[in-house]
Amino acid sequence: MFLQLIVKKLSELGERGAIRLISNILSRGDVAVGIGDDCAAFEFGEEYLLVTTDMISQKTHIPKEMTPFQLGWFIVAINLSDIAAKGGAPLGLVLSFGLPKETTESFLKELTKGADSCATTFDTTIVGGDMKETDIVTICGTAFGVVKKEKFMPRIGSRPGDIIAVTGTLGKAGAGYYNLKNKTLDSDLSKPLLEPTPKLKEGKLLARQKCVTSCMDISDGLSSSLYQLQELNNVGFEIDLDNIPISPELIQLQSEQSGLDIYDIALHFGGDYELLVTIPTHKFEKAKGALKKNDTDIIAIGEVTIKKEIIINDGRVKKTLENKGYEHFTNHAF
Amino acid sequence: MFLQLIVKKLSELGERGAIRLISNILSRGDVAVGIGDDCAAFEFGEEYLLVTTDMISQKTHIPKEMTPFQLGWFIVAINLSDIAAKGGAPLGLVLSFGLPKETTESFLKELTKGADSCATTFDTTIVGGDMKETDIVTICGTAFGVVKKEKFMPRIGSRPGDIIAVTGTLGKAGAGYYNLKNKTLDSDLSKPLLEPTPKLKEGKLLARQKCVTSCMDISDGLSSSLYQLQELNNVGFEIDLDNIPISPELIQLQSEQSGLDIYDIALHFGGDYELLVTIPTHKFEKAKGALKKNDTDIIAIGEVTIKKEIIINDGRVKKTLENKGYEHFTNHAF
Repeated sequence: MFLQLIVKKLSELGERGAIRLISNILSRGDVAVGIGDDCAAFEFGEEYLLVTTDMISQKTHIPKEMTPFQLGWFIVAINLSDIAAKGGAPLGLVLSFGLPKETTESFLKELTKGADSCATTFDTTIVGGDMKETDIVTICGTAFGVVKKEKFMPRIGSRPGDIIAVTGTLGKAGAGYYNLKNKTLDSDLSKPLLEPTPKLKEGKLLARQKCVTSCMDISDGLSSSLYQLQELNNVGFEIDLDNIPISPELIQLQSEQSGLDIYDIALHFGGDYELLVTIPTHKFEKAKGALKKNDTDIIAIGEVTIKKEIIINDGRVKKTLENKGYEHFTNHAF
Repeated sequence: MFLQLIVKKLSELGERGAIRLISNILSRGDVAVGIGDDCAAFEFGEEYLLVTTDMISQKTHIPKEMTPFQLGWFIVAINLSDIAAKGGAPLGLVLSFGLPKETTESFLKELTKGADSCATTFDTTIVGGDMKETDIVTICGTAFGVVKKEKFMPRIGSRPGDIIAVTGTLGKAGAGYYNLKNKTLDSDLSKPLLEPTPKLKEGKLLARQKCVTSCMDISDGLSSSLYQLQELNNVGFEIDLDNIPISPELIQLQSEQSGLDIYDIALHFGGDYELLVTIPTHKFEKAKGALKKNDTDIIAIGEVTIKKEIIINDGRVKKTLENKGYEHFTNHAF
């Protein structure tokens, strides 16, 4: 008879398992919205103060083709995307740079310029930071912003019958990835992957309409995001495959690379940083109109259902959508 | 004739050189207090919103004797110390864990418990975070808090004639370090190094007095902090060696380890997380009284001078204080 010690590793636990573990340990405070949403939200008079943090490391998140400028842009963009998903306006960011000793001055300059460029492009500023020596490049960003309480777009609130929509085309980042991987190199094709655009404008316009019942960004890929939203909302989704807006970059790449499954990429590949929103049917057209008036759009891709399943309908067959999203510790996109 | 390429490395630039470089690149925004202070500060009605971030990595900041619980405590404590240095009350923190794949579930549990324990001890909460795979343990924390505008304690503002003081004894962390290094192991001796106490209570009491002309925490060591304060304020300091409050832990260790230079440790070793404050002479006793009434203290260690030098006076000889503080990339405490 032996005593068996079962020591679970993070590689078995997965990121979401680990986050559940953390969430069960942490004490609850005066926070209005906490762990499990894109941002934490604190009451601050008539507003919520939004806070979000994201870390990236060379180990899993930084393709070798990413320039230091793009790396700086990226860490700011992905944090601003979380502010966008709550309908917020960014107040500022702090950044921590974990860098190896042999990092060059020019790397640091370009990294900083990229971060500053993304921040100023979206009318915000980097207000402070920290720098430490690490073995591999590891960058952490924290963004904070504000949103009027009545405009806040939570993750929880979608109702059966709501339309589910995205703020732009899907598969842009995936196209960028396969472009790099297969070295068919058209550098413009990889830009959406390496220099994503946080959908702050779309987030703010949607928040102003007060029509959104739930919202999150789809950084982990559409299918993964749908499964996260389903779990939180205790609903289901029926997605119309024909309505998935495939990015022009992915269509271009398909014409150059045979064997590329564009629907697989659009449905499952992460890194697009679009917003995924649910909106009651009767408010949808008005919301879409408001976005169109501002040279942007939302595209309906399906409906929220009572049945707690995620169904993909290709016009002939309905089947369960696979949950193939990227998960750290168990699976690496790069 | 050869073209010489001089590629400077961070190891030559040093942390402060690198921070100057970053600071010169970043655009200025609507921030009231930005890079170069313990926290960034934003106007928020009658208050400032304070934000600070700190990263630690196994490479330089995590001694092998530190338990995962202590690691969690540490990242929260050092961020709260920056809020304390501005007289603020913490609102919350976000944490990012960069962890190797082989990290165990029990490590993650203890890490989280330590972070939660420090946060709740100081009446605040961890409201969110991120987790990514890295080669070595790298943890990033961001704390945010608030302080009434008129109570904010900036780094800039000290005037010749002001008293310069610290909120507690020095050399605690140094004693902890030499205790670990020389394995004379009295585990209580290393606690101040591994589980530091952010001086939030002292910061708030001092802020309430509205007597502080400048303040920072002395995480980098007293001499390094004095040189930073001197540069910002364009003043000098004369420090009385006899008034340096040596920590009881350091005195105890001295009795056990021969050859320990306790003044060298108290003046130069980092990690004490006390506050370093300047206060006009006529307000000093009232401020000290207010702290004493609340079972704490500030100890005068010298005076702000017109002459832009940092002098250490041992009662017989006055000489320039060396600037031997810990600097990342050029020198490692661990």
